[in-house]
Amino acid sequence: MAAPGADASGEDALIARYFRPLATDLGAFNLLDDAAILKATGEDLVVTTDAMVEGVHFLADDPPETIGRKALRVNLSDLASKGATPAGFVLTLALGAAEEAWLAPFARGLGEDAERFGCPLLGGDTVSTPGPLMISITAFGRVAAGRIVHRSGAKPGDRVVVTGTIGDAMVGLDILKGRSAATAMADDASAREMLIARYRLPQPRNVLAQAVRDHAGAAMDVSDGLAGDLGKLCAASGVSAVVDLPSIPLSRPVATLLARGAVRIEALVSGGDDYEILCTIPENQFEAFAGEAGSAGVAVASIGTIVAGTHAPKFLDADGTEMSLSRRSYSHF
Amino acid sequence: MAAPGADASGEDALIARYFRPLATDLGAFNLLDDAAILKATGEDLVVTTDAMVEGVHFLADDPPETIGRKALRVNLSDLASKGATPAGFVLTLALGAAEEAWLAPFARGLGEDAERFGCPLLGGDTVSTPGPLMISITAFGRVAAGRIVHRSGAKPGDRVVVTGTIGDAMVGLDILKGRSAATAMADDASAREMLIARYRLPQPRNVLAQAVRDHAGAAMDVSDGLAGDLGKLCAASGVSAVVDLPSIPLSRPVATLLARGAVRIEALVSGGDDYEILCTIPENQFEAFAGEAGSAGVAVASIGTIVAGTHAPKFLDADGTEMSLSRRSYSHF
Repeated sequence: MAAPGADASGEDALIARYFRPLATDLGAFNLLDDAAILKATGEDLVVTTDAMVEGVHFLADDPPETIGRKALRVNLSDLASKGATPAGFVLTLALGAAEEAWLAPFARGLGEDAERFGCPLLGGDTVSTPGPLMISITAFGRVAAGRIVHRSGAKPGDRVVVTGTIGDAMVGLDILKGRSAATAMADDASAREMLIARYRLPQPRNVLAQAVRDHAGAAMDVSDGLAGDLGKLCAASGVSAVVDLPSIPLSRPVATLLARGAVRIEALVSGGDDYEILCTIPENQFEAFAGEAGSAGVAVASIGTIVAGTHAPKFLDADGTEMSLSRRSYSHF
Repeated sequence: MAAPGADASGEDALIARYFRPLATDLGAFNLLDDAAILKATGEDLVVTTDAMVEGVHFLADDPPETIGRKALRVNLSDLASKGATPAGFVLTLALGAAEEAWLAPFARGLGEDAERFGCPLLGGDTVSTPGPLMISITAFGRVAAGRIVHRSGAKPGDRVVVTGTIGDAMVGLDILKGRSAATAMADDASAREMLIARYRLPQPRNVLAQAVRDHAGAAMDVSDGLAGDLGKLCAASGVSAVVDLPSIPLSRPVATLLARGAVRIEALVSGGDDYEILCTIPENQFEAFAGEAGSAGVAVASIGTIVAGTHAPKFLDADGTEMSLSRRSYSHF
């Protein structure tokens, strides 16, 4: 990503107008060079990549401002779950055409979040495509050497903990697509709005990075569905888990839909797009973790226990009956 | 990018089969986590991103093996021009479907080059798209603190230097598209093959990274056309340049086409896809630079001189007449 010189082309002008203001880090060289610099600071550099395709990860008529924010936030959520502090990001943007009406709010939303989360634009590439809009972000974070929080550190006896609420984004997407949840929510505009916002604008839990680093044995963010993601965490750790379904934190609107039978718990725990932190906390550290989360204004819920074994995690209802899950997470292929 | 656990989905299986073998760096955690680690080593970390879209940056019927190689090589070329040693890369791959017949050779080519250039896969994201195939790579390199070579260090009196030959890839693409160059080359199959290979398989000059670091005042790689890229380098440096057109290094087949009038010099210097290094070398260091390049087996040519001024670089023919350039480089928009 490099901006205009004597021979400014459309692409360079676009970068200068919309993206140079986001490149506030010295290592971005004002997007005037071919590469950026991340300084060595003695800490490990955490690298994560998440891409979004129009019609797959967001809807063509989602507001460009939230598309820009979401593209960055899904990566910030990965950094938070690894215990890392954001350091910057690079952006690949594949566009059909350089439309100012779309680019201006996209870059504004992205820039506001870059500033809010302390994660400046370092560089990237802007290309044209005859296909759908696509955004790929690679984000960088810093963590003290050797202190990244892995998926693989869960131990039998640990609590299984999630932040926030689960399933909101999945219901929000259903509403946007006019599916059954939309009908069931027809009488509650503010709930509809909240759920749609949860789909369009994840709330990455970067304020919890230090608490995760200090207390979690294993952590990841919930992006493809709680059930599948917990399965991945357990597999990486060589353990299993038992989850108490009634303990899974739900927002009031989703709890209402569930009580009415308008949405199934199976769908909520496999729907994805939650961008909450899923982590395992040793029993003797749960109180400290919950306290620090509370101070940071983030709700956390203990939803189950890590157990020995290699079977897929079990999800038990209030009667202790195991829920059968035909599909535990979202897969692209 | 994370590979299968108890609940392996198609996406995870695909990553495990095709991409885990490329993740040879310890910091990639076998693609079993949500993020990778780059260790701090006291050196600066150079970050560069280049994306390729089917039908825009490569042709749908290009061999998947060379598509994989090219996607990495265009990024390696950026690292080389900045004087950086490759450290690893992350890959975003947007696919219509997970076709083994395409993925296997793509990953094999990519993996062979990752090994050859010492640039292992660290992570990434694989997503589905209803649109054209797209590959975005963010590559990392290391350079001693403060020693990155910028675009902005050119000074009046410096020589303007390029590696290899210019225009081959542009003619190779013309041949693949059946344009006039194809007709003119109809009698020379080996030349056609060489030129097509130059389009499909850039030769990044990473063996020159140290020579560039030690001798170049300014450097970048030629990706969008020599004329436009030199204009950008000059603008970033606050200088201009005078280039001697007959000094621009051409391969034998391209020189023949030029002599026959089958291709114009204006097209060769604005065509792009060269992935050669363009740099400026102080006069008293040119001999040392050329000697080191020769030892590394890379041809370098002195094609002009940096001069004071802010006008676009001038390209003079054998008579000293300035060539007029309507289009100096490729722009996406």
